[in-house]
Amino acid sequence: MSFSVFGLEGLPYVSEGDDIARLIYEAAVSIGLEFEDKDIVVVTQKIVSKAEGRIIKLEGIEPSDFASHIGKMMDKDPRLAEVVLMETSRIIRMKGNTLIVETHHGHVCANAGVDFSNVKDGYVTLLPVDPDASARGLSDKLFELTGKKLAVIITDTWGRAWRLGQVDFAIGVAGMAAFRDYRGETDYLGHELRVTNIAVADELAGAAELVKGKSAGVPVVIIRGYDYPEGDGLGSDIVRPVEEDLFR
Amino acid sequence: MSFSVFGLEGLPYVSEGDDIARLIYEAAVSIGLEFEDKDIVVVTQKIVSKAEGRIIKLEGIEPSDFASHIGKMMDKDPRLAEVVLMETSRIIRMKGNTLIVETHHGHVCANAGVDFSNVKDGYVTLLPVDPDASARGLSDKLFELTGKKLAVIITDTWGRAWRLGQVDFAIGVAGMAAFRDYRGETDYLGHELRVTNIAVADELAGAAELVKGKSAGVPVVIIRGYDYPEGDGLGSDIVRPVEEDLFR
Repeated sequence: MSFSVFGLEGLPYVSEGDDIARLIYEAAVSIGLEFEDKDIVVVTQKIVSKAEGRIIKLEGIEPSDFASHIGKMMDKDPRLAEVVLMETSRIIRMKGNTLIVETHHGHVCANAGVDFSNVKDGYVTLLPVDPDASARGLSDKLFELTGKKLAVIITDTWGRAWRLGQVDFAIGVAGMAAFRDYRGETDYLGHELRVTNIAVADELAGAAELVKGKSAGVPVVIIRGYDYPEGDGLGSDIVRPVEEDLFR
Repeated sequence: MSFSVFGLEGLPYVSEGDDIARLIYEAAVSIGLEFEDKDIVVVTQKIVSKAEGRIIKLEGIEPSDFASHIGKMMDKDPRLAEVVLMETSRIIRMKGNTLIVETHHGHVCANAGVDFSNVKDGYVTLLPVDPDASARGLSDKLFELTGKKLAVIITDTWGRAWRLGQVDFAIGVAGMAAFRDYRGETDYLGHELRVTNIAVADELAGAAELVKGKSAGVPVVIIRGYDYPEGDGLGSDIVRPVEEDLFR
């Protein structure tokens, strides 16, 4: 089995109201790329947030007392801290200038995914309100445009417990299962595999990151040839319920 | 930019003392695959451990009182619990039948990586003593055999905090940097990127897992075309020092 991963070059800078599915389709047409059934389209959260208007101007944000406190304690703009708190359902860790939270979606990441890279000065982007709905919308629209059944994964770049550096994770999924479940199958020697349930959507997100580059501006990546598990998976499927989580 | 990921079929079942680099080389020759400079050879920990004799027969293991207690509490074979404790430097969480530990290498995973899948009945495999040295040995030997500079990543399949399912992680690295560091570079709009230091070795490990399959027995994967960051990276570079870790 094999697959290939390639960046979709030529997307314009995305602004509020843009039709990302159409921009992806047009970028593909312009380089002669014909989509195939089972292609996976991996889209950086940032352009989805921009298109959906999930951008906030810091000017005019009134920081609460707690946000002002966080701002002072963590050397952050207190208005940014206020926006992070708006996006937060639970604070997981506050230490040094690190603020790890659970978002309203249940994802655990620094600063609730609020970010000021690749957005104009004085503004920050928020995660999409419902990244799975965003992914579903892109998949449906790409089907209309191309006639092909494409899976879509929306990704963001987050740190991890225990390990340095960041990797891309799947926050929205449509058109495929998020996991490949080997439980009940047998290994090479006939033993039953007990706990192997691979979060393939996260592995695909990470694979796509490798060709994105943070500075180069390639926010869409195509993965071709991976025989993904069929299903109506969701990014929210990957969130470990808090009551089963040993680290929240 | 693009890259491809393909499983190396045709490796024999690996036993203690086997020369994995030679087996990889011979499998490649048998399918007409010629290695190229900058190919990345991703190798499942399991075959490295087997070749290095990191297999223990449970019969004859005398469980300590604490291992017997863990066995009873967690419905595990107490001899297995004893082996896990031998491999453990610090217990991070014990709950239900989940035992999350820090290994002597510093990696955090369930059961210290001790595993009984794809190994004969009554035996378990341990992680390599020094996965970075194992990776370096494979890279050096493959250079002798092929004349090509190949990066090597040794991987294992672990769960994560906050997210369900498992993904493959890099535990040994040779011939490349483990991270691509964007800190100090600027984004699309000219802002400095502050904290983006991508753990590419982990993303490559996950990408390779996608073509392995747990039951199909494809323990070696080739990644071709990824322009990895040069350097003498190590899997141990990815371990977050305990004093900087908010979740240990």
